[in-house]
Parts: sequence; structure tokens; C-alpha cells
Amino acid sequence: MSEPKRIDVEKYPFDTVVSLQGHLLDSNIFSQVLGTIYDLDGEIEIIDLKVGRTKEDISYASIRVFAKSNEELQHILEIIQKYGARSPDFEEVELSPAPEDGVFPDGFYSTTHHKTYVRYKGEWLEVKNMEMDKGIMIKNGEASCIPLAKVKKGELFVVGTKGIRVKPPERPRRKGVFEFMTSSVSSERPVKVYAEAISEEMHKVKTKRGRIVIVAGPAVIHSGGREYLAELIKMGYVDALLAGNALAVHDLEAGIFGTSLGINLKTIQPTEGGHRHHLVTINEIRKIGSIKKAVDKGIVKDGIMYELITRNIPFILAGSIRDDGPLPEVITNTIEAQDKMREVLKNVDLVIMLASTLHSIAVGNMLPSWVKTICVDVNPAVVSKLMDRGTQQAIGVVSDVGAFLPLLVQNLKRYVKPEI
Amino acid sequence: MSEPKRIDVEKYPFDTVVSLQGHLLDSNIFSQVLGTIYDLDGEIEIIDLKVGRTKEDISYASIRVFAKSNEELQHILEIIQKYGARSPDFEEVELSPAPEDGVFPDGFYSTTHHKTYVRYKGEWLEVKNMEMDKGIMIKNGEASCIPLAKVKKGELFVVGTKGIRVKPPERPRRKGVFEFMTSSVSSERPVKVYAEAISEEMHKVKTKRGRIVIVAGPAVIHSGGREYLAELIKMGYVDALLAGNALAVHDLEAGIFGTSLGINLKTIQPTEGGHRHHLVTINEIRKIGSIKKAVDKGIVKDGIMYELITRNIPFILAGSIRDDGPLPEVITNTIEAQDKMREVLKNVDLVIMLASTLHSIAVGNMLPSWVKTICVDVNPAVVSKLMDRGTQQAIGVVSDVGAFLPLLVQNLKRYVKPEI
Amino acid sequence: MSEPKRIDVEKYPFDTVVSLQGHLLDSNIFSQVLGTIYDLDGEIEIIDLKVGRTKEDISYASIRVFAKSNEELQHILEIIQKYGARSPDFEEVELSPAPEDGVFPDGFYSTTHHKTYVRYKGEWLEVKNMEMDKGIMIKNGEASCIPLAKVKKGELFVVGTKGIRVKPPERPRRKGVFEFMTSSVSSERPVKVYAEAISEEMHKVKTKRGRIVIVAGPAVIHSGGREYLAELIKMGYVDALLAGNALAVHDLEAGIFGTSLGINLKTIQPTEGGHRHHLVTINEIRKIGSIKKAVDKGIVKDGIMYELITRNIPFILAGSIRDDGPLPEVITNTIEAQDKMREVLKNVDLVIMLASTLHSIAVGNMLPSWVKTICVDVNPAVVSKLMDRGTQQAIGVVSDVGAFLPLLVQNLKRYVKPEI
Amino acid sequence: MSEPKRIDVEKYPFDTVVSLQGHLLDSNIFSQVLGTIYDLDGEIEIIDLKVGRTKEDISYASIRVFAKSNEELQHILEIIQKYGARSPDFEEVELSPAPEDGVFPDGFYSTTHHKTYVRYKGEWLEVKNMEMDKGIMIKNGEASCIPLAKVKKGELFVVGTKGIRVKPPERPRRKGVFEFMTSSVSSERPVKVYAEAISEEMHKVKTKRGRIVIVAGPAVIHSGGREYLAELIKMGYVDALLAGNALAVHDLEAGIFGTSLGINLKTIQPTEGGHRHHLVTINEIRKIGSIKKAVDKGIVKDGIMYELITRNIPFILAGSIRDDGPLPEVITNTIEAQDKMREVLKNVDLVIMLASTLHSIAVGNMLPSWVKTICVDVNPAVVSKLMDRGTQQAIGVVSDVGAFLPLLVQNLKRYVKPEI
Repeated sequence: MSEPKRIDVEKYPFDTVVSLQGHLLDSNIFSQVLGTIYDLDGEIEIIDLKVGRTKEDISYASIRVFAKSNEELQHILEIIQKYGARSPDFEEVELSPAPEDGVFPDGFYSTTHHKTYVRYKGEWLEVKNMEMDKGIMIKNGEASCIPLAKVKKGELFVVGTKGIRVKPPERPRRKGVFEFMTSSVSSERPVKVYAEAISEEMHKVKTKRGRIVIVAGPAVIHSGGREYLAELIKMGYVDALLAGNALAVHDLEAGIFGTSLGINLKTIQPTEGGHRHHLVTINEIRKIGSIKKAVDKGIVKDGIMYELITRNIPFILAGSIRDDGPLPEVITNTIEAQDKMREVLKNVDLVIMLASTLHSIAVGNMLPSWVKTICVDVNPAVVSKLMDRGTQQAIGVVSDVGAFLPLLVQNLKRYVKPEI
Repeated sequence: MSEPKRIDVEKYPFDTVVSLQGHLLDSNIFSQVLGTIYDLDGEIEIIDLKVGRTKEDISYASIRVFAKSNEELQHILEIIQKYGARSPDFEEVELSPAPEDGVFPDGFYSTTHHKTYVRYKGEWLEVKNMEMDKGIMIKNGEASCIPLAKVKKGELFVVGTKGIRVKPPERPRRKGVFEFMTSSVSSERPVKVYAEAISEEMHKVKTKRGRIVIVAGPAVIHSGGREYLAELIKMGYVDALLAGNALAVHDLEAGIFGTSLGINLKTIQPTEGGHRHHLVTINEIRKIGSIKKAVDKGIVKDGIMYELITRNIPFILAGSIRDDGPLPEVITNTIEAQDKMREVLKNVDLVIMLASTLHSIAVGNMLPSWVKTICVDVNPAVVSKLMDRGTQQAIGVVSDVGAFLPLLVQNLKRYVKPEI
Repeated sequence: MSEPKRIDVEKYPFDTVVSLQGHLLDSNIFSQVLGTIYDLDGEIEIIDLKVGRTKEDISYASIRVFAKSNEELQHILEIIQKYGARSPDFEEVELSPAPEDGVFPDGFYSTTHHKTYVRYKGEWLEVKNMEMDKGIMIKNGEASCIPLAKVKKGELFVVGTKGIRVKPPERPRRKGVFEFMTSSVSSERPVKVYAEAISEEMHKVKTKRGRIVIVAGPAVIHSGGREYLAELIKMGYVDALLAGNALAVHDLEAGIFGTSLGINLKTIQPTEGGHRHHLVTINEIRKIGSIKKAVDKGIVKDGIMYELITRNIPFILAGSIRDDGPLPEVITNTIEAQDKMREVLKNVDLVIMLASTLHSIAVGNMLPSWVKTICVDVNPAVVSKLMDRGTQQAIGVVSDVGAFLPLLVQNLKRYVKPEI
Repeated sequence: MSEPKRIDVEKYPFDTVVSLQGHLLDSNIFSQVLGTIYDLDGEIEIIDLKVGRTKEDISYASIRVFAKSNEELQHILEIIQKYGARSPDFEEVELSPAPEDGVFPDGFYSTTHHKTYVRYKGEWLEVKNMEMDKGIMIKNGEASCIPLAKVKKGELFVVGTKGIRVKPPERPRRKGVFEFMTSSVSSERPVKVYAEAISEEMHKVKTKRGRIVIVAGPAVIHSGGREYLAELIKMGYVDALLAGNALAVHDLEAGIFGTSLGINLKTIQPTEGGHRHHLVTINEIRKIGSIKKAVDKGIVKDGIMYELITRNIPFILAGSIRDDGPLPEVITNTIEAQDKMREVLKNVDLVIMLASTLHSIAVGNMLPSWVKTICVDVNPAVVSKLMDRGTQQAIGVVSDVGAFLPLLVQNLKRYVKPEI
């Protein structure tokens, strides 16, 4: 080993020491931190590196980071703290009041979706309601993520990067379903095995009394998945449904007319003039007053909405500009719909996204990185987009949701019904 | 020619006579009417058929339609009236009052997006604000399309199918840009030629002082089309823009930081930490109060929103549940956003949809079948979906919008700037 | 009806009379003929039109076609004869000898894939081995389609368009599985219903002792369909398999190692180093001498190739430039492979294409328009491309082949095993 | 730091020491090696780790690997040697003769596409003609990659994993075009910037007298890219073309008739009957004898094939089972075509793949990991598939090739023509 070169401190006059700990080497964390510093035109000197000798041991590293300007140094620190790097001296977070309703203070800290702590009055507070691209409000000794639209004037938000510690997900030590399946998105994988593994995960979650939320697009109905999603609800595997007007309308149309956009779901024969069914369905429900009343009055006797309503399972139907009608339960204000969705997503353990781009992306944006997500869509581009959120807890299945759901239900039938 | 079989009137006891006129044979109308009747298990006898001998001549047909039940006969009549078939005796429309706000009367007529007339007090009224899947309200001697959400209790709506005449678009006699390009959607077509032809059409529309509306998704910015769409606005080819929060945010982020979701648009290098730009942009605009104020104060000096605002060109930003922020001008109520979009779409001559699925489908649903539409998207499935609206006035271009817009601008530069 | 305009014979000095017969009006044939003539800048006068009064009656039309030049007139005739239009006087076909091996004579007639007759020595000969884009050879009083590569010097081929009659498929009078399913390609259709209908069709074909050929790509294995395709073979529903090197290699790898490209098909866990399995499989089979010998020696004990070989069912493995190996049975000469494929496709009643673009397009090009085809692929663009061959006998299913095949097998199990 | 746990040598009785060197930490190599060992149920002890203190320094690591069985230990060693791990004692490679033509010896080493060395008679030989999934033959003191089909009985091939050293590509220290663009495949990137950067790279390669090979599919012609690819050839940026029958036929059809599959490339108007052009083109060229003769005789006067032939630039047209004709120059034997392609790819510096799946995958399989590749396709799935080859030297551009090529040519015009 030749004598290492020294950093040219005239070129790199600004420096600070940061520390890292965890399964640094096999978790990719160390290489990401070093790579980032180099990419941002910084330099490093490794001061100390204690490598855990075995799989179970924790490693520690102490690194001096050099930069050409203080601004660049701060930029580097901002980035690498996302990988868990922190200054050894524990600084307090800096706070600043929101200048008015709906506006963060200047220099606000924009969150990741990883577990985050802030150093406040000498203690590390875990940030609640973790979500990406939010601000961190400190109030009553608690730290929590707040979306821009909910900011109230005068409330205190974290600014800068001092006193913040982010704990990115590490490479799991033991391989479970989620670990070995989350490699690349591909349609060239045996869907049967996915259905098996996902059913296992669902059962495990329910056995531990965890919560499963389904996000579903209208293609669930068109592709013939209606009865199977209804079955999942009956079996107790659905704790909430997030969808739009279209899913509910198509589900109700199928219940009332046996068609979806006028296509007979049994024969695939277009019922000529059946497109009217769609609008008549909406009109009928509006006339009665709500989907719930239509179920209560026995107008709808099966299907997804029926099972949800008769079991008192919450559902959120969020409005969109392409909606016909809409149905009475649809929340036409998008900010209000987001709020309701957040409520339902609290403490969720598993989110299953079925053939829905808009709603899945909206939900994906609201989830912390440690919530397991499964995305099933026939379009690989949609699956890739949803998987690409920096979490190691996501499974993408490129498959026809109408063919996948029966397989899933069939697999779940192996288990004794979970207690609800 | 053997002696034709007679219809078995015991099997088909219900019949009526309908007439058709137009370029029946080469326009496919006749075969659609006959095919529909056969599909619906009806029978026909051709009573009279006067075929125009040359291209310019109009053909007339008189057909007796047979069905097994009166219900089936009515169903057949309902369908074939969409192709222009009508009973020779001119019946009046039947009207019924809306039972309450937001609800059509039972048996309401659900519209197509073709030109439609109703027989009211002995006259044919053309239905205004023609849109698919709406009701027809008669008020003050005028007929107009009304969406479900806008229905007021007691207003009179057309029910049944009597006294309604639909004029579907015929096969054009002379071949223009729109005619020869509207065959199948394919990525295997020379995009250069499309750009040329579309620029011609745009120039023609503006020369006649027509209106062009652009629908645009955020990929316009990511893919590098920002400056070219801005240029189209400067050149006077845009009369209104329909988009969402994301397009505006990305446009403004590009204006303020030179990035799109933190990706430098000049180098494609990810500006590490640049994802913050997105949220900072929204926060800044919210702090100032509106995009307009940000333009007025010189914070944004170029781009799409800048060109629209400084030229007083209307834009609608419709909210969605996946929005961050949103920006102050975003209309978060989807029903209100639809209303505003309808306003802007009145009397539009040409709609150009650029890389936007949600907004394009929403707009497509609001357009009558005779408005020319152009849809540019890199995903053939999106283009197909948008083209598949039963109009012969739609061009689908499967291309990268970032590569297509420069070609379009370049082609438009051949023309003298249109007077605005 | 106003007095129809007369054709300006000075502008259109060339004319001829053609006749049409069949279900002209509801089958779209008439509108296609007229539309084509107008598109090609011709004019028409309808001399006679006897419309069948009921569904069962045949219609007859006699039309005078006008054109500006003789060349244009010939061009029009060439096109409209594809829709069945013919000159009332039955002219003999014109023949010309091939100038050398592998070359058609100048002016050769290029075939459609519809049923075709040629007028030879006063009789109508049906053209055998009907295929698109071929020449028609007359030899020993028989007419047959010949691909370019098989032409022998001096053999007589049809030139021009005289004496040729094409019978395009008409709109079916009665609606069966194939008729109502063949509308548009969409992933938004219930795959279960397709599986049901296709199983019915397969059973019907086998009951009539018809032939079913499967075309399969390697994704059949990756996606977990191996055991189900093997089951189809066991059940007697496969009369031949057309595939490439990759399908066979993956099938054999699964048989020997339980992996596909090194991915364990039971756990989807990548067997590290498992990519070697692929090459080792090929090497082993090459060492033994053939797949057949490997089956005979008990090295491969299940799977697609095993079932084919033990049942003596023919298979063609056609080579491609992306092949590893290849396996001994692979035909590396593409012209030779085409010939073998043609042999296997003779008298086929139903072709099922499973997740294969290259092989499906190759097979599609070799099929006459009346052979029923089913195409299953997760990519809608592939399905569209294969459906877009001008036949009304094609069903496209946008679904994951690994999820579709179990459904198909399950449906076929309802039937008593067909006698083989 | 707590006292690290010791490895339980009773559970893990088999061990060996391996060493690593290079930019281990920021290049991800170390984490891959450790992750692999853990995944394969091994254990490690880090014996020594000398971390380079600055960006330029090399790191060294010495690790003891533990496994439960000797078989597992060998398997681990086989995998981690792909990441560069090697036993400190330099063992000789083991060799074994091929049992017969076209068959590797048992236990043959299957290559990666990374730079590979073998220890033979005390020296490290670099393996020539590096390609994935091949065997390594030692002959006359030279080591080279040999495809299965070329193996001759008795020749000596490397077996096992002893004495083999693989040098995977490291994370580049300095960021060039290829480095910052090769992240994820996305259609949401500014194509203009790609065109600029790729033109730079092409010019750089030609300035250094390097070689550029183009792989092109028929969509180059359909999408309007013909004249631009011809221009690239004229400008001296193309050293060879790899394509199939279809590209050449469409190019020649465009040259002779101005159409592509009968579609007029200037008007996009389908020339009715123009599909005949395709076959007539093939027939004409076959009649003349070759494309070259057609160019020499002046029948073809422009386009891709014309420019190649008049400039004596090599091209390989590889046959496929979906070919019509084919043209005389097409190599219908796929093994022979692969050989010819390998020849042309020798010493290539840059490969540009344009809208071709089959040919691009075939070429991708033949390239060592250090050859730079650019893939342009409108389908993101194709681009992903081609990028997913374990190299850091690949750029994927999701764009319409017909819109991309003009941009590329325009950018290249900035440079002085390279000397050819």
C-alpha cells in the first residue's frame, strides 16, 4: 500500500467530522455516503473505521469531510444525513415560525420518508406521521410531519439540517418474502409464487392484528376481479379501501346491471346502449342519497362497496376531474380527500395497490419507507414508478389484476379465517 | 336473385319504419345500422333505398325494423338513432322534471357527443354545450347538455328516445390532414410529417381566428419541452392551457432553479438534494400569494406560466389527490375545476393534448365529436385510449413530447405570426 | 331527392363495370369498396343494387367505376378485387414464367390471406396453401401460394389482376365466441371469461378432430406456465408446438435444475450463479445428442418438451441470432425453419400464441385469414400487432400468461378428455 | 463497541481467506461481496481492512469466509470471484478437453462479460473476445472466449473457479456523459440533452479513431429516421451496421417507391395496394442479384444501404423466421450470422441501438461490459431490458427514434467532419 495522498487543504478549506454506525459495509450505506461526497466534489479522510467482524456486529466509522466552500459543505451534510451520517456533537434543531397559514418558514427542512429524529431540548424526538416532502413541526414537545396545506401561521418548523437524524432502512439480515422478491420489476416472474408469498404476508399481518389497506382502480372491475376483492373483504383481509369514483361506480353498475361500462362481465358482450348503465347507476345512487342507503335499501346486494358497508369498513373515494357524477360519498375537494386518506393510512402495516396509477402514487407519497407495499399492475411502467420510492419493502407484480386476485384468494383460503 | 325470404311475423310481431339519409353507403352508417339490428336480434326489410349515383349525391333509405318484443324494439331504436336513424313521423321529445338537485328524472336520455337535435314544439332545436353522458335540459326554448352535478330540481329533461335526432360525423369527402392521419395509432409513423401537418392545421385555425386549447402534463417539462411550449404561447398559438398542479410547479421550478424534480434540465445531472426545489418552489409561490404575483414581482422570468400570465391567456390548474402543495391558483374542488374547464373549452376548434393522461381524458369527455383533437404521448396505450372516442377528427402521435415540440415550433416558424 | 349529378366524363374518361355480391351492406364490404374508389380519386355510378330484404338474403350490386387514367383505373381494380369486386365477364388469369430461381415474374400478383380463386381454363381454381404476400403458381391444373424463396425458374405465376377473385371474410351472421370477443384489444376485460370461452373453443375443435397449434415464447416458463402448458399437452389439446431455442432451454433447465435463467421457480429467489444452469443445460443436451435422447435416458422427466416427445407430438424450434447454444433440434437456417413451420400449420384449425412476439408474427404471416387465432400477451402492443391482420377470427387477451394458463387448464378439466 | 461475537466454527467448519482490492467502499464492491456471502448462508471475519484515506487511494481487504459445507464454500467463492475476490495464493487454472465438437467439458467455467484473467503457467493471461456465457479456451498460450457452437473436440477449456480473476467495472472517479446519464431508464428526461451528450461522445470516439457500430430496426424507416441515419453514415460516424432483412427492405422500398410498407413517408397516406411494394422491392433486388448490384446499377440512389455500399462500410443482415424474401445479402443461418456479427463487433468502442429488440439483445449478449452502449427505443421495457446487463457504460433513451435522429444529426453538425 503506497503512502496515501493528503487532501490539499488549500483547495478544500472547509471540513467537519461526521460519524456513521450500523451494518455499514454490507448495507451499502458506506458506499452511498462516500459516493455522494465524491459526486458533490468533496473529499474525505477516514479517521476511524471499526468493522464488525461478523454478520451480527455493528460497524462504526468516523470521517472527515472536506469541501471547497462552506455552502458546499453544508450541502454535502444535508445529503449524507439522509443516509444516517451525523455530527458527533449533538446540536439542537433550529426552529422558525411559519410566516402565515399554508407557508413553511424559509430554509425549512424537507423530509424524507425514512424514520427521522430531531434533537430537541437535549432529547431525540421521533418524528410522527412520517411522510416525504413535508415540514417537521415541533409542538408540545412532539415532532410531526405537516403538509404545506395544513401549516398554521406561527407554528414552529425545523429549518436547516442541524440536530436531525435520519435512519434509512438497512439491508435485512434475514430473508423473508419482501426481501427476495423486491429486486427488479419484471413480467417474467411466476405470478403463482407471488400470490403464495403475498397471501402469507397478508395472513401474517392479520395474525398480528395489523392493518391492511387496499388501493384499487376501476380495472379491478373491468378485468373481472370484483368478486375476488369482495371475497378478500369478507375474509377479513381488508381494513380500509382507498379508491376513486370510477371504482365505486363500476362496482355498483356490476351489482345493479351485471355490466361494467355496459360490457356484460359474464359474456364480455357489449350490451348495446349499456354505456347508459354507468350514468343511470350514478343517478340512482344520487337519488337515494348515498351508497350506504342503496345498500341498506337492498338495491345493491353484493360486491366491493356492499361488503365494505355491511362490515363497517372505512373507505375513501377521492374525486378527480375525470369523474362522472360523482357518487354522493366522493370527496370532491382533493386536499380534504388527502387528509382523509392520511387518517386511514395511520398505523397501516401493508398496502396493496391494485391497477390504479393516480391513487397509488397519491398513497405512495403518504407512506413512510417502512410500510410494506405491494403493487399489482399489468403495465410494467406503473409498477416501476411505484416501486421506485427508495424503500426495500415493496413488491411489484406485473400481472393482470383479474387473473391475480383469484390466485390470491385461493391461497388465502388455506388459512383459518383471521379474527377481525 | 332467388325469391327473398319473408320475415316471420309471428316470431317478430313488433315493427316500425325508420329512415336514414346521407352518404350512407361509403360512410359505413348503413352497415352499422344493419349490423346493430342483427346484433340485437332484430330483423329488417328494406322498403326503399335510393342510392346517390355519384360521390356528391345523398342516399335515402327506408327500413322496417322487426323485433320480438316491444322492449327490444325500443332498445334497437335507441341505439340506431345514434347513427342517425329516425322515425319518419316527427314526434315531440318527452320531458320530465328533475326530482331533486343533482338527479336526472327516471328514463333520462343519456347523450352522445355527436351533434344532436330535439323536436320541441314542432321545431328542431340544436342541443348546446354538446358533451357525452349528459342529460338534455329544455329551458326558455333552448336545449342544452347538463352534467349531473349541475341539475336543479324541477328543471325539465328529455326522457326516452322520441323526438331526438343525432347526426354522427360522416366520412369526409375530401381528404385533409385529419382524415388521412387518423387511421391507427402507431409509433411506427414519421413524426416529422405529423409535426408538419399539425403545424399547418394550427396555422389554419388561427388564420380563421379559431381557438386552440393545450392540455399538458408535467412530462412536458421533464422531457425538455418547456421552452417550446412557451414559444408556442409567444407565437400566439395557445388560447388557453388546461393542466394540473404538477405542470405549473415543474415549470416554475425550472424557472427558479433550472431543475425539474431536482434534475438539472441542461445536464440531466441529479442535483443532489434538488428534490427540495420542488417544495421550496411551491412554498415560495404560496408565500407571495399567487403565480401571477410571482411573475409580476419578477421572481419568475420565463416559461409556460410566465408567458400565459404576461399575455393574459387563461389557464386552469385542476387539483388532484397526488398534488404537493398545491399552488394558490390550483382549483382543489374537482367539480368546480370541471366547470372552469368547460368554460374554457367553449367554441374551441382544436385541442392539443401533450403527455397527460388524467387531464386529457377529462377534457376528452367534455368535447363534442366535431372538435379536432391531437394527442401526443410516448405511451401508445394512452394515445389509443384518447383516440377511441368515436370521432374521425383525432390524430394520435406516439412520440416523445420533448422531441415533438421543437419540431412543431420549427414548422410553425415558416408562417407569419398569426394576429392575436 | 334532387336530380343526381352526372359524372364529368371528360375528367374521368376511363371506366369499367364491376359487380359485387354477398352481405354487402351489413358486412361493410360495400362501404369499403366505395370508400376505396373515392380515396383513389375515382368516381362511381351505381347501375344496379338489389338489396336482400332480410338478414339471410344476398345482395347484388353493379357499379361503373370511373378514373382519370387507365393506370388509375387498373390500380382501383387491383384494390377493390380484394374486397370481392370483379368484372362481370370472366377473364382468364394471365401467367408468366419465373425468370430464375427465387424470383417472381414482373407484374406478379401478390396475395392476400383471404380465400382466393383464379379463372384458369374456364374454371375457378381455389388457391392452396393460402398465405399473404406470396405468388400464385399454376401447375398441373392446381393453383397454390409459393413464397419467394421457393420459386423455381420457369414455373408459371399469376401476373396482373385479371381472372382473380378474392372472397374476404364476411361479418358472421351468428355470434359465437370469436365474434363477440374480437372487438378491441384491452387489458380491461375479465380474463376469466376469456379462459372459459377459449376452453370451449379448444374443446369444440378437438371434438371435431381438428388441429390446435401452440406458439410459445420463453416467458411461458419464467411466468410459471410450464406445468400448465405441459398439462395441456397431456390432456390432448396440443397437436404441435412452434417455439424457439429459448423456450426449450428454459423448459429443460426447469426440468433439470428447477430454475429459469437461474431463478428458482418455486421461491423466485435468484440462485446465485444459477445463470450457469442455462448454459450447462444446453451443454448437457448437446453432449447427449438431442432433447429426445435426454428424455429417453430419463435426464428430463417432466415439462413441455418431455410431454411432446413422449407423445410423439411434432415441435419446431426455429433459431434466432440471440440464441445461446443452440440445442441440437434447433433449426438454425431460418428459411428451412419457415418451411417446417408451414408444414405443421397445414390444416390447422386454431392457433394459440403465448407470450411470443417473433414467433407469433412469423406464424401470423403464414396463416390464411380464416384460421382462428388467439394471442395472449401481457403487452397490449404485441396483442394489437398480432390482431391487426385483417381477420375477424382473432381473439387478443392482454394478460399474464402465467396467470392465464392455469385458468385455461382448470376450464378444460370440465370436459371429458378428447380422444387423440 | 461491544466485544464482537466469534464465528461458531462447529457450525461453519469450512473456511478460506480471500482478498479484495480497489475502490472497495465507494464502489459498492465490498458491500456486494459481504451481502453475497450472507445471502449464501456464509459467515465472515474481517482479518484486515486498509481503507484508502482519500478518493484516489486504493483500499485492501482480507476476509476469512466460513461455510457449512465445502460445497457451499466453493459456491460462495465462485460467486464472489465475479466481484474481484481472489484467493491470496495464486492457483493455476484447471483445464479439461472438450469431449466432442460443440460441447464444453463438465464443470466448465461460464464467463461474465467483465475483464477476466486466468493464471496459466505462472502468468495472468487476459481473456480475449470477452463475452458473457461462454467458455474460456487456452491455446498457444492465449486465453479466449469461445461460444458453444464453435468448440472443437479436444481443445482445452477452463473448468472450476481456480486461477480466475474477474475485474468488474468500478464506479468511475470522474463524471462524464455516460456516468451521470446511466441512472434509471425514464421517458421523463429531456431528449435534447441526450442528443447533445451522445453527439459529443460520438465525436470523441471518432476523434480518437475509435469504432462506432449501429444496430437498427425497421422502425428507423417507418418513423422517418431513414435520411438521418443515412446522413450519419455520410458524416463518417458509422463503422458498421447490424440489422435484419426488414430494415434493408424498408430502406430500399423507400428508395424505390418512397413508401414504407406501402405508407407514403412524405404524406403518411397509405398508398392503397402499396403493401405490394414491399414484395416487389425484394423481388427486384433478388432479380438483380444483390443490394450491391442494385446500387451499382443506379436502381437505388439514396438511403442507408446506398450510403453503406458506396462507402464500403460493412453491414450484416441477419435472417429471422419472420422475414419475407429474404434479400440476397441476408445471412439465413443464425449461427453464421452471429459469427459475422462478432467479427464486426471486435474492437468496437461505441454501439448505438436504434429501435430494434431482437438484434439489440443479440448484440448486447456479444459485448464485453466495458463497451459503451446507447439504446434508443420508444418502449421503456425494451430500453430497460437492454440496460440491465450489469454495465455502468450504458445510456437508455426512451424516445421516438424518428424524432431523436434529426436532433442527433443536428448536434453532430457542430463538429468538423471526422476523418475517416
